[in-house]
Amino acid sequence: MKNITVLGAGLVGSLLAVMLGRRGHTVQLIEKRPDLRKVKWEDGRTINLALSERGWRALERVGLVEEVKQLAIPMYGRMMHNEKGDLTFQPYGKEGQSIYSVSRSQLNEKLMNLAEEEGKVQLFFEQKCTQVDLEKPAVHLTHVVSGEESILQPDILIGADGAFSAVRSAMQRTNLFNYQQYFIEHGYKELTIPPKRDGSWAIDKHALHIWPRGNFMLIALPNPDGSFTCTLFFPFKGEVSFDKIRTQADVIHYFETYFPDILPLMPNVAEEYLQNPTSSLVTIRCYPWTYKNKAAIIGDAAHAIVPFYGQGMNAGFEDCIILDQLMEKYSQNWEQIFEEYQGQRVDNAEAIADLALQNFVEMRDYVADPKFLLRKKIEAHIHQLYPDLWTPLYTMIAFSHIPYAEALRLGKKQDAIMQQIMATPSIEEKWPQLDYKTILQEHQQ
Amino acid sequence: MKNITVLGAGLVGSLLAVMLGRRGHTVQLIEKRPDLRKVKWEDGRTINLALSERGWRALERVGLVEEVKQLAIPMYGRMMHNEKGDLTFQPYGKEGQSIYSVSRSQLNEKLMNLAEEEGKVQLFFEQKCTQVDLEKPAVHLTHVVSGEESILQPDILIGADGAFSAVRSAMQRTNLFNYQQYFIEHGYKELTIPPKRDGSWAIDKHALHIWPRGNFMLIALPNPDGSFTCTLFFPFKGEVSFDKIRTQADVIHYFETYFPDILPLMPNVAEEYLQNPTSSLVTIRCYPWTYKNKAAIIGDAAHAIVPFYGQGMNAGFEDCIILDQLMEKYSQNWEQIFEEYQGQRVDNAEAIADLALQNFVEMRDYVADPKFLLRKKIEAHIHQLYPDLWTPLYTMIAFSHIPYAEALRLGKKQDAIMQQIMATPSIEEKWPQLDYKTILQEHQQ
Repeated sequence: MKNITVLGAGLVGSLLAVMLGRRGHTVQLIEKRPDLRKVKWEDGRTINLALSERGWRALERVGLVEEVKQLAIPMYGRMMHNEKGDLTFQPYGKEGQSIYSVSRSQLNEKLMNLAEEEGKVQLFFEQKCTQVDLEKPAVHLTHVVSGEESILQPDILIGADGAFSAVRSAMQRTNLFNYQQYFIEHGYKELTIPPKRDGSWAIDKHALHIWPRGNFMLIALPNPDGSFTCTLFFPFKGEVSFDKIRTQADVIHYFETYFPDILPLMPNVAEEYLQNPTSSLVTIRCYPWTYKNKAAIIGDAAHAIVPFYGQGMNAGFEDCIILDQLMEKYSQNWEQIFEEYQGQRVDNAEAIADLALQNFVEMRDYVADPKFLLRKKIEAHIHQLYPDLWTPLYTMIAFSHIPYAEALRLGKKQDAIMQQIMATPSIEEKWPQLDYKTILQEHQQ
Repeated sequence: MKNITVLGAGLVGSLLAVMLGRRGHTVQLIEKRPDLRKVKWEDGRTINLALSERGWRALERVGLVEEVKQLAIPMYGRMMHNEKGDLTFQPYGKEGQSIYSVSRSQLNEKLMNLAEEEGKVQLFFEQKCTQVDLEKPAVHLTHVVSGEESILQPDILIGADGAFSAVRSAMQRTNLFNYQQYFIEHGYKELTIPPKRDGSWAIDKHALHIWPRGNFMLIALPNPDGSFTCTLFFPFKGEVSFDKIRTQADVIHYFETYFPDILPLMPNVAEEYLQNPTSSLVTIRCYPWTYKNKAAIIGDAAHAIVPFYGQGMNAGFEDCIILDQLMEKYSQNWEQIFEEYQGQRVDNAEAIADLALQNFVEMRDYVADPKFLLRKKIEAHIHQLYPDLWTPLYTMIAFSHIPYAEALRLGKKQDAIMQQIMATPSIEEKWPQLDYKTILQEHQQ
């Protein structure tokens, strides 16, 4: 059994610590922020979680499904709000299928508690990592309040320390490390729709709400307390952008122009807008993810993605599942475990990174397009007729365990077929009568 | 007039210093290595320079053409060596067109001398940059011998400090900095073909020699002293790779197997192979290249590329031309100068980075393919018939000033046309009779 240090007690780090502890390893779980269970981490820059099938399977593995279900609000589809306030609903999957809005902090607390209950996992808070030595491996820590310095020298070091990972930075200084960080031109800002007077939700709580506006969009996810956490995705610069909105009057004017139906439900929008930070959105791709049998990175540290497919946490949890399966298979052969871990995951991480970037365009622009909605309807129809021959891309990502890269590949094939179908004259009327079986068979040859 | 610090006295930094000095600025040119004119930098990892049209134009701008011509050896085409020792010559351009083999150190010396003669440029050697502050801007320096520390606070800081640039590292820590480093799976090793007994060249001095072997290759460029500098591009890992060749006997066996014609000309190949380092090859892409009106990066610091198109220095020199033109146009408006500089250059840098990666496959693999050589012959033929309608991609890159991005775009169009032409039955016999004008006109519609 090994002595393992996990850097970062966020969702992925905490889940991994549970799994490592259960396999008999001694784990130090290190976090630079204070204990979330005593001091909230909320800093006005949380994007709500959308927990879907891959995430649930990971929670199942550690026995947390029932507890988390209590906290989760099912969202059965997208509710689009146009400029006039008209609503269009588009289901995510088949009847009854949903993704779940979950509070990041509540889920994190549950995972920390579980890690601590394990007995093999020790949590350390307010410990900032100042240096990483991959070769030993070792991490230098400084307590953020007392300034006290310490050095940990585990057998294995795992970086679950997010998009700006210190473990990955150390890897980046080794030779032949491929690395990319890519910021999109949009930032985001958190806003809130408070509960109604009676404590209930101001808009439908069982949907993910989207106000698609071409080059920008607002979304809202329900919270258990009756509020919604909204996120505005908006260009940093340009004609209509963060850059141009500087006063309370600007904020009100902007919302009146683009989001008139939501403005009455957000009494504090101007203050919140000016007070909350504007954050950036980065995609990180890198390789390798491991260093000898000594260190590895996981979750956002290895593959930070933009939030538009709701898969960031789900992908990180899937990393944990794979690593746990490999520990089961190879026991103490860490070189083998690490080699297969990165071998299995890197292409899938690339695929979900691409899909997440693509989905931003879909969400902010296409979802307002009747042709797009018709296409989604037809795809659902084909899926219902021939579930073995056709699974829509969103369903593969959110409601299955098909590897992301495989889903992306199948999605591209479907794209070609749907383009052909959508080119049918008068498709708006004819779609229920088309001979989909023949079309699918033609494409399979 | 400004006080400007240029970090890095390599080819691009030295050239830029000349240009800045001539525009009246006071320049500190800082280099971490010793003065090249007293102590050679040679470290067994030089890839020879192939100076082409873009590079010449930059030298013309500072009046160095005649002097450098004296040092340069024209190479009129590629000389391919197959496993049997048979030779095939493929011209680079029209008759008389050539690229030039130039000694990196000799060219660098010339540029340093010119910078010093300017009077406005001061050179400092053995000064290692330990810290960069973009906001001030400031650079912290430590003398590598005495250990003495100093701080420079110029008005403007320019990083011409290569693929592992300290200025770029500082930029990378600012928000919204997009960055990618990508290592190919091949490394390289420098080797030598010494002059013959009588001091002359052992193989044709007016060609760039290539031994294409599929997944690896050896190249050789002539030096004025009768020797050739050879570079072996070879995978780090795999069946036939750096990893597998560890003893003198391994080296000899490898050369006997793959490069039998050259082995007798390299009496010290085994010693050299084991003694010289194995270096890696990286492509760097990033954006932005400037920080306010305070700092900028140039050359490899902004866009390190693999050497397979022979454009690394030429691209860096073209950066200098553009910057010099913008200084002329906008005088002291540095925000404007920097904005247009990066605006004009970044897409071109991306394009030459892509082309250089593609050309590796062409050089190590396709050049041995009769179909490929036929295609090149046909392209040259079309170019001769219709010089206004068709310029081969290599010619656009090496013998013109067409922006790289434009050349890449045109090259893709040509690719489609050539694929069609090459699909003509019995193209081997029929090519001189085809109606190229009609084919080109069809594609222009």
